[in-house]
Amino acid sequence: MKQVVSSDFKLGIMAGGQLGKMLILAANNWDIQTYVLDPSNDCPSANCCTKLINGSIVNYDDVYAFGQLVDAITVEIENVNVEALRKLKQEGKIVHPDPDALALIKDKGLQKQFYAEHNLPTSPFELYDGEQAIREAIDNGQLKFPFVQKARTAGYDGKGVAVIKDESSLKNLLAAPSVVEDAVIIKKELAVTVARNPSGETKCFPIVEMEFSETANLVEQLICPANVDAKITQQANELATSIITELNMCGLLAVEFFLDTDDRLWINEVAPRPHNSGHHTIEACVTSQYEQHLRAILDFPLGNTDIISPSVMINLLGEEGYTGSVNYDGLAECMKVAGAKFHIYGKKETRPFRKMGHATILASTLNEAKERANEVKNTLKVKATS
Amino acid sequence: MKQVVSSDFKLGIMAGGQLGKMLILAANNWDIQTYVLDPSNDCPSANCCTKLINGSIVNYDDVYAFGQLVDAITVEIENVNVEALRKLKQEGKIVHPDPDALALIKDKGLQKQFYAEHNLPTSPFELYDGEQAIREAIDNGQLKFPFVQKARTAGYDGKGVAVIKDESSLKNLLAAPSVVEDAVIIKKELAVTVARNPSGETKCFPIVEMEFSETANLVEQLICPANVDAKITQQANELATSIITELNMCGLLAVEFFLDTDDRLWINEVAPRPHNSGHHTIEACVTSQYEQHLRAILDFPLGNTDIISPSVMINLLGEEGYTGSVNYDGLAECMKVAGAKFHIYGKKETRPFRKMGHATILASTLNEAKERANEVKNTLKVKATS
Repeated sequence: MKQVVSSDFKLGIMAGGQLGKMLILAANNWDIQTYVLDPSNDCPSANCCTKLINGSIVNYDDVYAFGQLVDAITVEIENVNVEALRKLKQEGKIVHPDPDALALIKDKGLQKQFYAEHNLPTSPFELYDGEQAIREAIDNGQLKFPFVQKARTAGYDGKGVAVIKDESSLKNLLAAPSVVEDAVIIKKELAVTVARNPSGETKCFPIVEMEFSETANLVEQLICPANVDAKITQQANELATSIITELNMCGLLAVEFFLDTDDRLWINEVAPRPHNSGHHTIEACVTSQYEQHLRAILDFPLGNTDIISPSVMINLLGEEGYTGSVNYDGLAECMKVAGAKFHIYGKKETRPFRKMGHATILASTLNEAKERANEVKNTLKVKATS
Repeated sequence: MKQVVSSDFKLGIMAGGQLGKMLILAANNWDIQTYVLDPSNDCPSANCCTKLINGSIVNYDDVYAFGQLVDAITVEIENVNVEALRKLKQEGKIVHPDPDALALIKDKGLQKQFYAEHNLPTSPFELYDGEQAIREAIDNGQLKFPFVQKARTAGYDGKGVAVIKDESSLKNLLAAPSVVEDAVIIKKELAVTVARNPSGETKCFPIVEMEFSETANLVEQLICPANVDAKITQQANELATSIITELNMCGLLAVEFFLDTDDRLWINEVAPRPHNSGHHTIEACVTSQYEQHLRAILDFPLGNTDIISPSVMINLLGEEGYTGSVNYDGLAECMKVAGAKFHIYGKKETRPFRKMGHATILASTLNEAKERANEVKNTLKVKATS
């Protein structure tokens, strides 16, 4: 491959959200040109990419034309036009993650079938065409409460998931073709991000523990290192490495796990790109997930992933009750919190629970980091300008 | 001050070299708009700033017009038009560092007089109009070998400095108005970067030790933490804090010291901006010098400066014998070195000893970091494409 730094090499990124932005900032450290495909001139990446190309990441023609402008293509979201990527790959373009892996992952039904076929632990499931089929299965006694319904495609940030506990929550059923899986009795939610490059090298980031917000159905707080046995860490790393290897893909793969009350690991779902569960790596690990993604897709040796500081990461979500031009209430006050690192994504409009930024809090102990994270949570409120 | 993040607030930076670039990357983390004044469309900052304005940083009209476009102005180099900045400040624009401090610092003669007037330790000196006056002083017996001649203005990266050991090196005398100072018998070169914000808060970064390359007259290797007594660290921090306070300036001030063989500290010179001696802070300290500069000029609370990992920083200089389109020989190989973080500035043309990038090597011990830094130095060669 030709020299990618300080050259006319262009990395194409679909799309221009916060994950794209943080990938671009990593690419800037190495003076790599970044082209972004996004419909909006106001997307988070607009301010730091080399060139923003307006277009739709789900439209064949837009993606194919975008591919002609760049030397390599990657994604910050799964929901892209895979057919155009397949065509570009066929024509010799560098495309990571592999379009086949993307196609499989973006359909949660195919994802679950993949785990079953490869004897990878995931909760028992069935596929249904839609709401009607699910209601029939309940009536037939084939499906029992409680269960979790996930739309096969286009879900993100907790959208497209319904937890059906009993008859009364049936009103929440989604209309779309779905995976219906047994609800795991969750002790902890964990994640391992693994990277793989075209030379076949793989490397895992330290396992993290996620605390979810029930209201927003989003990661509320991410803890690194996770408080789990070495045996569980090893199992999770082995599973993550198996999945990325079996998928034969390059780049990052974030693997989310449930740990049940019997200390068994269940694969929840995966994302073939930088992920919310890896934000802390920017400051807390030797190599960030963004730099690692670049290393992996550009066939550089993978970077060391050691923890250099314990950390807690919190998402900065739009407050309930506020929609409009964003204002970060209490930000200056929070800058006093020792070890708090702020990432403001650059979304101009806030709305309830929208991911507007994140903060990673570094401290010499995890407890100290947690205390300071609480200070930030209590002080910083993402509201709209009055 | 109005909200500076995710708003129409614009930070103006003069100019667009690597220090400007790294400042912009820090500003991007907070979604702050950055405007850069630089004559070249190919400058390192071009690829990541919000807007590049072509113009000369030493031209009154260009600087004044640039000031009209932005809400606050700062510098990445001292050699700017101070009169235009004075006018802008007078008209109410936020200008940091203060134009008076800039005027004093950019003239090494005034800098030395400032130290003398404030009883701050600096080596004995005299000011001379030029080469002729120096030769006369030698002939009169007023000036004795060895001594160091520094051009009062416009020196950088070791340029504008002549070390005159004896009669035979008189041919190296500079023609410009100069400071001539006694050569200190140097045991170590040290640096402390201190920050100060408009609220008067000050904070020092951990003291660093610099190893110079005699050939290039540039920092070859920077070590953090420095191997010096706590007493010396304290003295250096107190001196740095005194200087920035007496100068009544906000932003960063990098203070370079000589430690002589009797363990006395002498102030060598200062820079009122991010500095080569603080590059390692990007990864090795909780707050980077770039983020700290933003905090200081935008009147945010100053960030914690604790070391999170021992580190060695090396400049990646253009190899002797190569001029032209840059090629980073051995970069992929070096990416294998554990804990090595690369910063490629984006200068398209290399020339001997030009600062083309830097690498910071993190390790659990300083010795390990030094060994790995040597690996990088021996493997990575900045050459021109054939």
